[in-house]
Amino acid sequence: MEKKSLDYLFNPRSIGFVGISSDPTSMMRDMFLKPFIYFEFRGAIYPINPKGGEIHGIKIYSSLGDIPGHVDYVIASLPAQYSIKVIQDCAAKGVKAVHFFSSGFSEIGTEEGKTMETELVKIARDKGVRVIGPNSMGIYCPKSRISYWDEFPKEHGSVGYISQSGGNSIQLVQMASARGILFSKVISYGNACDIDESELLEYMTDDPDTEIIAMYIEGVKDGQRFIETLKKAAKAKPVVILKGGSSNAGSSAAASHTGSLAGSDITWSALCHQLGVIRVFSMEELADLLVTFQFMPVPEGRNVAIVGVGGGASVLSTDDCENNDLTVPPLPPEIRSKILEFTPHVGNILRNPIDSQLIFQDPGGFVNMIKIISDWKGIDIMMALLMSTDVFPSFGDSIMYNLLVNTMLDSCQVSSKPMAAVIQPGIHPDMSREAFAAQQKFVSMGVPVYHSVDKAANAFRKYLEYDRRKRERG
Amino acid sequence: MEKKSLDYLFNPRSIGFVGISSDPTSMMRDMFLKPFIYFEFRGAIYPINPKGGEIHGIKIYSSLGDIPGHVDYVIASLPAQYSIKVIQDCAAKGVKAVHFFSSGFSEIGTEEGKTMETELVKIARDKGVRVIGPNSMGIYCPKSRISYWDEFPKEHGSVGYISQSGGNSIQLVQMASARGILFSKVISYGNACDIDESELLEYMTDDPDTEIIAMYIEGVKDGQRFIETLKKAAKAKPVVILKGGSSNAGSSAAASHTGSLAGSDITWSALCHQLGVIRVFSMEELADLLVTFQFMPVPEGRNVAIVGVGGGASVLSTDDCENNDLTVPPLPPEIRSKILEFTPHVGNILRNPIDSQLIFQDPGGFVNMIKIISDWKGIDIMMALLMSTDVFPSFGDSIMYNLLVNTMLDSCQVSSKPMAAVIQPGIHPDMSREAFAAQQKFVSMGVPVYHSVDKAANAFRKYLEYDRRKRERG
Repeated sequence: MEKKSLDYLFNPRSIGFVGISSDPTSMMRDMFLKPFIYFEFRGAIYPINPKGGEIHGIKIYSSLGDIPGHVDYVIASLPAQYSIKVIQDCAAKGVKAVHFFSSGFSEIGTEEGKTMETELVKIARDKGVRVIGPNSMGIYCPKSRISYWDEFPKEHGSVGYISQSGGNSIQLVQMASARGILFSKVISYGNACDIDESELLEYMTDDPDTEIIAMYIEGVKDGQRFIETLKKAAKAKPVVILKGGSSNAGSSAAASHTGSLAGSDITWSALCHQLGVIRVFSMEELADLLVTFQFMPVPEGRNVAIVGVGGGASVLSTDDCENNDLTVPPLPPEIRSKILEFTPHVGNILRNPIDSQLIFQDPGGFVNMIKIISDWKGIDIMMALLMSTDVFPSFGDSIMYNLLVNTMLDSCQVSSKPMAAVIQPGIHPDMSREAFAAQQKFVSMGVPVYHSVDKAANAFRKYLEYDRRKRERG
Repeated sequence: MEKKSLDYLFNPRSIGFVGISSDPTSMMRDMFLKPFIYFEFRGAIYPINPKGGEIHGIKIYSSLGDIPGHVDYVIASLPAQYSIKVIQDCAAKGVKAVHFFSSGFSEIGTEEGKTMETELVKIARDKGVRVIGPNSMGIYCPKSRISYWDEFPKEHGSVGYISQSGGNSIQLVQMASARGILFSKVISYGNACDIDESELLEYMTDDPDTEIIAMYIEGVKDGQRFIETLKKAAKAKPVVILKGGSSNAGSSAAASHTGSLAGSDITWSALCHQLGVIRVFSMEELADLLVTFQFMPVPEGRNVAIVGVGGGASVLSTDDCENNDLTVPPLPPEIRSKILEFTPHVGNILRNPIDSQLIFQDPGGFVNMIKIISDWKGIDIMMALLMSTDVFPSFGDSIMYNLLVNTMLDSCQVSSKPMAAVIQPGIHPDMSREAFAAQQKFVSMGVPVYHSVDKAANAFRKYLEYDRRKRERG
């Protein structure tokens, strides 16, 4: 019964948009409608405003009741005080689920806000209407051509993301999709007055389109139920959780944001450890782990070969790996001599990291070297390092950087071990453009991309730890 | 005597360039010469190649001996095996100092490389010629119009940077200058066969143009001398050190990079703590601390007000501050009511962080609010947060982001407490361009800019700790 009602959220046949402004200069006027047009939603779209009229060539209905057809789902983006009327209208119209963007409920901490939220839920439950939010962005489900943000990818993938915060949901989709991650379903659920984290997690666990589950969560409504649900989810799929409000003041901020009770930080760490859930501590780390689970075959061990240009960077990269429990073993004499057959010694530090000038003199030789190193049993992970300073405008624009990038791409194709690319974002906009273009090339080859060695090494450490514990549990 | 000879490095009257290629297609042909032309070096420039000819309209001399005038300083960028001949020629010509870019000495670990380096130093010392390097990029001193990199700023500032790695020196100058840091002197000193970290640190300590000292160091030649020098330096000026090779394998990488003995990580931590030296662990953190020392007045305490848009970001930002020993205190009723006089409650979470929609509705009111909050005695640091997701292409390009940026800039001008801007770098190139333009605006107002709340909070923590211990020592 619950699942059936959630299906209406992700696969509605018709949608009403309550709160379409009649003011054509309002930036928020069609905030939720526009993405549906852009995504070419195939069901019926019903904008609603008492004044009627037309928007984007679509008739505006003066009320929900005036709509001739059935309405599965309503998106409400109007001030909180109108929410009771909206839920009553939805109940009368037989709407299955409503998403409230509106804020001004329990999260503002006033009695009035709390009472309004309680009343909203009471009516919804009485009438059998499911509610997302309030104070939430709603649903992005590219397969159903549903989105709350124009710029999200239209293509669908296999990461399901449950986010209590709307802003963090937008940020993650943007960050992760730039690195090749596509989503099955994303839901920003805000105050969770009705549909909550446990119900959504259960849905994602059973969802055949979702292979990896990501969560940004500020607090839970029913701790025991959440633990049970999380346990099942973690058995079925990798689950990566970013817990907001882990500090005392952060926990109070979470209360103001989504009216959540945060729970102690230690409890969360213990819970994640016990259930085999991967805990992360920033949005970027969340993206790092998703990229790793999505694109990185599980390495057989923790031995990394780092290849790139720059002695100082090699030293710091080694520190970053070792500080994340990875090892950067020296190349043994037999591997070194194989490589020395076709490359001169000077300028190529043939230890590990491999600070190779060779890439500029003999790209084919470099690729050959990568093949030899990756074939060595002492290496489990190949890491290609592209520094922001590798973009040398003084040496003929991006010619050298492109040579680096293309040679590293060729190297990925010959490597017999999982390979990752670390691409430092640019400092200046010109560098950023080059670095982003490079990132897209690696992404299109299915190579995991990270933005620093430290971040990559941290993701590998957590990935290996996850895999080890999973195998131990059998 | 030593200082006098180092002065020739930073203020040479004439420079010889040994290793100018006669091949016009070689990218390395004028690598060291070109920046001098770009920087409009005012002294004499003498390119040298046995074949003679002309480069950039300047006569190429066939040897050092052929040069009619005096040569203070020589930059040598040719293979290691020619280095002995070069140092002999320099000695014969009365050259005061030579910079060897060339690698292939002690850092490659062969007996041949070590012997060559020893011989080089022996001749240099016998003849009274000072040597930078080998295996180094040399000197950037904008006041003297000297640089080894075209794109470095021509303007001079007050940060002196001693870097054992050439690549890391370029990266730091680029990263820090994009955030408003200008340099008095930067030196990439490589293998330190003659001029070493202690001598350079002593020079920077006495240098009136240098107010803050930054170091990237992989190892020291004479531990006791370095400790004495560092002690004096830290008494005179803030010293920020990034130690490369802090892990075991990283230390081996450092040996291959610059032939350095790295020393134990614990020793370094203890040393820095004892001497009041700020230790950092990445290039970005080094830039963060320089920006803080350069632009941030010392805050009177650790209470931060975070202002920005986005509930989820507010929660994570609070965690980031609290996890760095800062506090994010709630606004007391009297401050809230002052603000509520001119701004509605809903949508503005008037706790702290302040998740303010107000900026879009009433920018003047927002600035007024910042003034009120900063005047409150419970706040020591104001932090303005600009998220990458604040760039909404769907809402009319960058109009909203610019409104945010400009209102935050106005806020900086009314704030009675030190204010910092956290500007998330863009995810896509378009966003990067906007974020970079915003950064430049804050930089031009002398506001410290960071790229994440976590990084800003970490820098404030170290800055406050440095200040506290300095006051304790009296």
